[in-house]
Amino acid sequence: MPELRKDPILGRWVIIAPERSKRPTYFHVPEVAAAEEDLKREGCPFCPGNEQLTLPEILAYRPDQSQADTAGWTLRVIPNKFPFLAFEGELEKEGVGLYDRMNGVGSHEVLIETPEHNSTLASLSLSKFEDVLWAFRDRISSLRHDEKFKYVLIFKNQGRAAGATLEHPHSQVIALPVVPKAVVDEMNGSEKYFHYRDRCIYCDIIRQDAADGMRVIEENEDFIAITPFAPIAPYEFWILPEQHYSIYEQINRRQIENLARIFLQTLRKMDAALDNPPYNFMLHTAPLGDESNEYYHWHFEVMPKLSIVAGFEWGSGFYINPIPPEDSARLLREQTIHS
Amino acid sequence: MPELRKDPILGRWVIIAPERSKRPTYFHVPEVAAAEEDLKREGCPFCPGNEQLTLPEILAYRPDQSQADTAGWTLRVIPNKFPFLAFEGELEKEGVGLYDRMNGVGSHEVLIETPEHNSTLASLSLSKFEDVLWAFRDRISSLRHDEKFKYVLIFKNQGRAAGATLEHPHSQVIALPVVPKAVVDEMNGSEKYFHYRDRCIYCDIIRQDAADGMRVIEENEDFIAITPFAPIAPYEFWILPEQHYSIYEQINRRQIENLARIFLQTLRKMDAALDNPPYNFMLHTAPLGDESNEYYHWHFEVMPKLSIVAGFEWGSGFYINPIPPEDSARLLREQTIHS
Repeated sequence: MPELRKDPILGRWVIIAPERSKRPTYFHVPEVAAAEEDLKREGCPFCPGNEQLTLPEILAYRPDQSQADTAGWTLRVIPNKFPFLAFEGELEKEGVGLYDRMNGVGSHEVLIETPEHNSTLASLSLSKFEDVLWAFRDRISSLRHDEKFKYVLIFKNQGRAAGATLEHPHSQVIALPVVPKAVVDEMNGSEKYFHYRDRCIYCDIIRQDAADGMRVIEENEDFIAITPFAPIAPYEFWILPEQHYSIYEQINRRQIENLARIFLQTLRKMDAALDNPPYNFMLHTAPLGDESNEYYHWHFEVMPKLSIVAGFEWGSGFYINPIPPEDSARLLREQTIHS
Repeated sequence: MPELRKDPILGRWVIIAPERSKRPTYFHVPEVAAAEEDLKREGCPFCPGNEQLTLPEILAYRPDQSQADTAGWTLRVIPNKFPFLAFEGELEKEGVGLYDRMNGVGSHEVLIETPEHNSTLASLSLSKFEDVLWAFRDRISSLRHDEKFKYVLIFKNQGRAAGATLEHPHSQVIALPVVPKAVVDEMNGSEKYFHYRDRCIYCDIIRQDAADGMRVIEENEDFIAITPFAPIAPYEFWILPEQHYSIYEQINRRQIENLARIFLQTLRKMDAALDNPPYNFMLHTAPLGDESNEYYHWHFEVMPKLSIVAGFEWGSGFYINPIPPEDSARLLREQTIHS
């Protein structure tokens, strides 16, 4: 059973998941090639026809009304075979002297974005991309009912250098009994700003950045894509709803369409400008149970992985970025794509 | 001129250093090989005899009394040729709407740990290792006099995967006009603990961990090496002084000897157990101007770089570690080394 442990100084939670070292590719990158050979022999577990290689599906979009765990789906959500957390069991919290821990109860799902192995998220059609965005919403809405969970973390690792172990396009959904430190820090920072100014800091950022335009990549009726003022990675960009909402689930149909449009467009520009870089994105949304507040504003953060993060950046929380965000925004804004 | 920008939500500073993209190996790892060819043609700038390839030295230990910027040194500190920050100029701070920035005034030095290109820090003799530790102290003591600086960051990247671009053994010294977020977070966390308990949290950790012994790797008269309760990386370990000191500079001669002993021993055990892994370490010491407080306790944090940090770990501040720190401590504790 994995275990959650809290750093007593920083308040940061870490999953200690010994089972996970069974996962063949986690350590020693040179062994990745060997693990991939295994996969090739058995076939890709995320490909249609190989549904028996995965655990039973949690959700699937099947326009042809085909049966669960057979081919025919256009999007499929399954439990991760190498989960970070155990789904079964009650949450038990305990102190160990000055330390705090709890058992690692949570869920870890894989969202297979398309049946096509050699496709990418950025090459999906607009309507298939909308399906992925709906599935994110469906999974949060469903996991919210379990009172053990305080946060649903949705993210994507694209490419080996960004942490992906399987090529078939997928993202991940993790339900956690704690709130990740990055979200706690954002909640605290934006609440502090709100107390002083009585305004949402993200709304203020959108207002100021849309007005001067220097860091804007794209904008439509409902969303804006910008590079942040102090990005920790070259070409990092954020996509934010223009209207203030704390949680992603409040998104409506028209907004999903506009989000799909701006998200696809910016990913395609990034792929064209940076030659299909490895990248990560993460949905930043308010914790479960904090559905509506005036200071937190949900958004996506996208980070191309272009450079090695040196130790001191990791250990110090102090980052160096050789590309001013005004330059990266201009390059992405002006990038032409085939669409 | 590089620029320092503050993330308005998280309070985290980022250096935007466009000059640095001139550095050939920062982007696109495949080009590293080409850059190394260049180096081989000109020779390693950190090797004795090549002193003219570097900027004039800031400090050198020369037991033979040889002249500055010639061979004969056993340890040498030089300005980084590709600095993150500019040394010249006055600090100017300004607001830009809701954002804050300042010009990137600071210093960035390279500490060449040994004249021997093919050596490693862990294979230095005890007395040469002590010299490195003295040099850390010398540089902080000297940089402290410049009132522009709020922090001196000392760290090492060993190996390509840990961010090192040159093989010749070296560490880095960066003087900053701001305090890195990791240190701010540690100061805040330990101050909060102190307010409630009137004790230093690090002293409490040392007391509890030394008593149960589960996470202890080594211990001597003055220092303890432990794996932390909630490590973010496999085999991460910390070295702490047993007595409470806020800043590294308070170290005395006997303590330097004991620190060199435990540091060398643990690095050698790590190298033996993990087959000379890439790694990073960083000195965590209280900010300049906060020399003596009851809650912060200086220490070194060492992180072998064994796995790719996936996007969600980077973006969420939520880490997964497949190796319980009790297991890694036992393995390192029991590891035999040739000494």
